[in-house]
Amino acid sequence: MERCMADPRVGRATPYLLVDLDVLRDNIAAMARLAADRGLALRPHAKTHKSPQVAQLQAEAGAVGLTVATVAEAEVFLDAGFEDLFVAYPLWVDAAKGRRLRALASRAQVLVGIDSPEGARALAVHVPGCSVLVEVDSGQHRSGVAPADAGVLAECAARAGLDVQGVFTFPGHSYAPGAAAAVAAQEATALRTAVGSLTQHGLEVYVVSGGSTPSAATADAGVLTEIRPGVYPFGDAQQWELATITPDRIALTCVATVVSLAGGNVVLDSGSKVLGADRAGYATGYGRLLDHPEARVVMLAEHHAVVAWDASPIPERGSRLRVVPNHVCTAVNLADELVLGDGSTWPGLGRGANT
Amino acid sequence: MERCMADPRVGRATPYLLVDLDVLRDNIAAMARLAADRGLALRPHAKTHKSPQVAQLQAEAGAVGLTVATVAEAEVFLDAGFEDLFVAYPLWVDAAKGRRLRALASRAQVLVGIDSPEGARALAVHVPGCSVLVEVDSGQHRSGVAPADAGVLAECAARAGLDVQGVFTFPGHSYAPGAAAAVAAQEATALRTAVGSLTQHGLEVYVVSGGSTPSAATADAGVLTEIRPGVYPFGDAQQWELATITPDRIALTCVATVVSLAGGNVVLDSGSKVLGADRAGYATGYGRLLDHPEARVVMLAEHHAVVAWDASPIPERGSRLRVVPNHVCTAVNLADELVLGDGSTWPGLGRGANT
Repeated sequence: MERCMADPRVGRATPYLLVDLDVLRDNIAAMARLAADRGLALRPHAKTHKSPQVAQLQAEAGAVGLTVATVAEAEVFLDAGFEDLFVAYPLWVDAAKGRRLRALASRAQVLVGIDSPEGARALAVHVPGCSVLVEVDSGQHRSGVAPADAGVLAECAARAGLDVQGVFTFPGHSYAPGAAAAVAAQEATALRTAVGSLTQHGLEVYVVSGGSTPSAATADAGVLTEIRPGVYPFGDAQQWELATITPDRIALTCVATVVSLAGGNVVLDSGSKVLGADRAGYATGYGRLLDHPEARVVMLAEHHAVVAWDASPIPERGSRLRVVPNHVCTAVNLADELVLGDGSTWPGLGRGANT
Repeated sequence: MERCMADPRVGRATPYLLVDLDVLRDNIAAMARLAADRGLALRPHAKTHKSPQVAQLQAEAGAVGLTVATVAEAEVFLDAGFEDLFVAYPLWVDAAKGRRLRALASRAQVLVGIDSPEGARALAVHVPGCSVLVEVDSGQHRSGVAPADAGVLAECAARAGLDVQGVFTFPGHSYAPGAAAAVAAQEATALRTAVGSLTQHGLEVYVVSGGSTPSAATADAGVLTEIRPGVYPFGDAQQWELATITPDRIALTCVATVVSLAGGNVVLDSGSKVLGADRAGYATGYGRLLDHPEARVVMLAEHHAVVAWDASPIPERGSRLRVVPNHVCTAVNLADELVLGDGSTWPGLGRGANT
């Protein structure tokens, strides 16, 4: 019943993150097909996995390059041999970050996000000629300029000596139940407006980048040239609850031990220091159990996950269960390594590479 | 105005965790005085800081030993020279964990929590004679037996060959506005009942352990022998909002850079991968700004903290601000090092020591 109960790695101390390599490969192949069928380039966001091994599988499936969130992640992946990197973030570049970016740009094709004239000028001072994409706000209201203002910023960046390649957005508000298709339409409208704005300012547009795991399937290939989904190799409880995936597509779980049955609850040793404390407004708990879809993590402390159990027989203390983190990106960021089914491990090379 | 704006470490890449050593020392001294004045032993929880340097300051101020949450944390602190360690957790001990515990017990005084006969017997099989405290549920409903059942479990543990030293509880429900005094009373009642239960079963009670940072000041010295607060050396936004501390007592902040002013918000580079995503029900946001008490982190992504700004002039892009994490324990768990005011660093030795 519990697939992990027959797991040969019973001696490994819990909690740890377990990757199902078959499911991982299937997920990577499925997204690659989706992008290829629609004529979109695929530039996966590596912040999800921070793993050169996963990135290698994505590259073998046809990814054109990687997206990263920080200069440190770009450094990790360049050192691992990935030479086409988009830092999809409005970096504030000072002298120190400028040195690091110049070192990267001397060895790889590097794109950087901008969302203000001030940020663009700071980048241009330290990394003359750097290739950039203008970030557009397609409705999440996190960062990025209004789509109609993209051309003004792009022209400013070009005058500062940057190489403007196009525009990008992150439709993060697709992380809401039933929102994906409507948000993909907003994304397309925003990007189309931004492209028009750049064109009006006399700039060529080579890259129109969007997409998230929930919205990738409905991303508008009429305007986008590439998508940057992150979560899809692993999946997580958020995607499960958004119905982006079914639970059989979840490739990463946290193996946890039942340490207590106090008060009739099942208490696992997978706390917030391994699962992460993410809980979106739509989430039904602090995580799910892969083999017990009705169970819910109802309380999460640093080293305790308290589970309201389902109708099946309550597990014994010492049992090992597979917990699905709400948000896999933050769970992976907490792990030193990912464990595979054969007991081998992949190091979390990018762990902590958050600057 | 912004103390950190004059910071000489402007070249250090943000985000990073900055410790104010003077405030840290004051906090450590204040809790040591509080415990001493009330005749309580102080056994700080090291999961908060995971730092031998902080533990050393606590020991110098009179702490009798350390509390840890995992065997890995015990290993880290024993290697750093701390030889009186309480693993305040109902460990499930298998052969591998038993070997690690025996190795610890051969070099240090080690106490372990138990909350079930099954857990106690597993511990006794692998670590015969191990010293234990019986965990009691004082109202948080996370782990621990009902207070009146403590004697039955203690007797079972003693028969299995364990060395029962007493009882402990974690009054975690003290983390609610205005709850501290009432919860301290519940804690005292629960521990008094548990002590009576052990006595009825013919067992001596040497240790009666409770206390949390919010409830430490009102812990009942009539029944408790020691307290185990964790957060107090640093403080955090939770303690600020619970009014356990005033903001001038916060010793740890995350130095972050303003990367965007999109939509009139201040967007910082301190996301959930450095602050942690903790947000208790009573929290007013995802973190606070030390120098801007009215501002609130209203949206938190992995690398973006979106701040609804206060009435003061909006900071420029590139400015550095001090963010107070909601829950300092999870923020520290994400950091490779703590940075001091003179630019030196303390390694996060216990980072990731979560098994």
